[in-house]
Amino acid sequence: MSILKSLNKIGFSKLTLLDDALKKIQAHITPAALDEVETSKALNRVLATGIISELDIPPFDRSAMDGYAVKAEDTFGASPSNPKVIKKIGTVEIGEETDLVLKSGEAIRISTGAVIPQGADSVIKIEDTDIDGEIVSIYTSIVPGKNVSKKGEDIPLGTDILRAGITIKASHIALLSSLGIKHIKVKKKPKVSVFAVGDELVEVGSPLPINKIYNSNSPMVSSLVETYGGSVVRELNIKDNKDEIRNNLIKSSIDSQIIIFTGGTSVGTKDFLPETIHENGKVLVHGIAMRPGSPVLIGLKDQSLVFCLPGTPVAAYICFLLIVGTTIKKMLGCLTTDPRVEIIATISKDVPVSRMGYKHYLRVRLEKRENQLLALPVKLKGSGIISSLTQSDGIVEISENREGLKKGEKVSVYLHP
Amino acid sequence: MSILKSLNKIGFSKLTLLDDALKKIQAHITPAALDEVETSKALNRVLATGIISELDIPPFDRSAMDGYAVKAEDTFGASPSNPKVIKKIGTVEIGEETDLVLKSGEAIRISTGAVIPQGADSVIKIEDTDIDGEIVSIYTSIVPGKNVSKKGEDIPLGTDILRAGITIKASHIALLSSLGIKHIKVKKKPKVSVFAVGDELVEVGSPLPINKIYNSNSPMVSSLVETYGGSVVRELNIKDNKDEIRNNLIKSSIDSQIIIFTGGTSVGTKDFLPETIHENGKVLVHGIAMRPGSPVLIGLKDQSLVFCLPGTPVAAYICFLLIVGTTIKKMLGCLTTDPRVEIIATISKDVPVSRMGYKHYLRVRLEKRENQLLALPVKLKGSGIISSLTQSDGIVEISENREGLKKGEKVSVYLHP
Repeated sequence: MSILKSLNKIGFSKLTLLDDALKKIQAHITPAALDEVETSKALNRVLATGIISELDIPPFDRSAMDGYAVKAEDTFGASPSNPKVIKKIGTVEIGEETDLVLKSGEAIRISTGAVIPQGADSVIKIEDTDIDGEIVSIYTSIVPGKNVSKKGEDIPLGTDILRAGITIKASHIALLSSLGIKHIKVKKKPKVSVFAVGDELVEVGSPLPINKIYNSNSPMVSSLVETYGGSVVRELNIKDNKDEIRNNLIKSSIDSQIIIFTGGTSVGTKDFLPETIHENGKVLVHGIAMRPGSPVLIGLKDQSLVFCLPGTPVAAYICFLLIVGTTIKKMLGCLTTDPRVEIIATISKDVPVSRMGYKHYLRVRLEKRENQLLALPVKLKGSGIISSLTQSDGIVEISENREGLKKGEKVSVYLHP
Repeated sequence: MSILKSLNKIGFSKLTLLDDALKKIQAHITPAALDEVETSKALNRVLATGIISELDIPPFDRSAMDGYAVKAEDTFGASPSNPKVIKKIGTVEIGEETDLVLKSGEAIRISTGAVIPQGADSVIKIEDTDIDGEIVSIYTSIVPGKNVSKKGEDIPLGTDILRAGITIKASHIALLSSLGIKHIKVKKKPKVSVFAVGDELVEVGSPLPINKIYNSNSPMVSSLVETYGGSVVRELNIKDNKDEIRNNLIKSSIDSQIIIFTGGTSVGTKDFLPETIHENGKVLVHGIAMRPGSPVLIGLKDQSLVFCLPGTPVAAYICFLLIVGTTIKKMLGCLTTDPRVEIIATISKDVPVSRMGYKHYLRVRLEKRENQLLALPVKLKGSGIISSLTQSDGIVEISENREGLKKGEKVSVYLHP
């Protein structure tokens, strides 16, 4: 009996549950190394260390309005019909130091963001005043502290402001910059090699001979790697040829933390991947109880995790999202290993599953109807049908113990990343 | 009366409604030019032209399973206890041409994705068969067409497959690649200049003198420009100095479709932006009935749209999302000009607004509690408080005619982009 045959028996005689497969992967995940980048260039990177504020924000008591710094008690009782009158003794602009000291009956013209001068306890808005020469009329009464942003009121020095594992967005860049943090430690992007395997595959841009198809998997997978925060070091279209597969496996294991193959992972006569992984590394899982995606193989070659995804594009896509993508996020130490947004919607019709015991993944389109958000299954003919992805907004998971979904029930739709 | 004063009166005596401001911008939006890129490099770009399939997908009738190509009628009546027996006459692998012609009583071993040989009408799965020499035992009955993906069943030639204005994701790259489309037309990224204006601003990385703050706005805005699909050609921190503002305005108007300033747009004594835009270009809107964000100014300098956002980071952020970001998306011709995901949640408490007649923007955190998704307002002290962004998941808009939100009502939360 060939190794292939025995592997097929090992792999497919008993399918692994997705959660168990993910646990097996977990034991082989090496956290990504550290990288230091400029904060301003850190968009979409993963923060590697927690950040503690070494400043008070704001760093001094400052005006939240354009107006006059005053003692609040000088405004008490003021109204449009009965204005209080005080004297302007100077101006403090934003960014300026001032040695002015304010006494009762005095006002200092102040800009938004400028330091509150000594003696002042509040700021009255310019709109609630009038000026004639140096005489300021006050038309409303304010309380002490009004329109003053106190030193440290946003972020006191010593605050834990960001946790390791967040993915940096524009607002984090603003926060880090406001604290004067020029460089941050982020996780290095895991290096990934991507191979589409198959004699039937033709590179996009070449003429299409009869019985061949264009390679759409490797550009799709490479884009997903990028979306999930990895870095593609190699993307190739290779033949159903054991030597070619082995050579690329060995070469990639030297420089890639993750090696992805699509195609050649099932029980076809030319599916050399299971055999090649077994001979040169280790098969962790072959066959997962999920549809589409069941022929997926997960293995190891030295320190590199190897994922052999089905050749049908939708199956490859779904296996990527649920298995490879989450692995990249775990390597990166992300707090959220599934970056997809979950939306609750109502399923528009009964959806029986093809076989209980498998997780099923349903592509759905979202549509608002009469104040209800409906999830409408897109036509489901085969896992090769890429347009079922491009016509859908997201994916609904149907768990192993369900016979299907019932029209009208609430489901979680995970939007495409 | 100075131009500044008269502008302030023009600007702030009557605030513009956000929707009206957006309409005024609309008249000055020039669609982005075309760019041609490789499909495989097009992730996150905006498709500029609709795509029509020039191929059938699949391009030929192909097997959806590993098994045997057969005439279905040869399987009729087959069962595990009463198998039908037929003869294997050959093999067809994926990617191969074949001149085999199948007759009654014959089977051809076939791989997933291989062409269906002449004479065959269906494929029986390998698991439902057994082989002994060349004798194939069939254990189940199948119907004609079973496990055959018909030519063009996914996408018939001539189908409109993608619309102009979509943002390219991995699945679109797969779809385009499967159709052999190597290059696509996308929209050029609008060029954007970003300036943080203020004598109080210190570059991150320098020591912080008293009464100064670090510049957090320009790195935040630049990151948002990138997130929304623009390209930052210039990012500078400049002084409250008319000449400096004017020179940068003029220089940027030559190479940027959008010019963004933060700070210096209100009625402070050093707020030179309104005056400078008025003297060198045109003020379209000064002051919008939104909180935070009301001092925003929108103008023109020749063909360039000029946005002067408030200097307080949260106001700058919200103005960017609602005004600048949507403008970039419109320039790009995006079908969806607000890329944020909308989530329906229940507001956790009463939220009165500070002043009716304004749109209010509330930062909220989402939390699941007892099967309910709650939107919890984050503390709301001033629009300068960047941590109200980093601690929140999204923003709730409260419309101009509302006095606030009532605990328990459903609200739309727009997740941070």
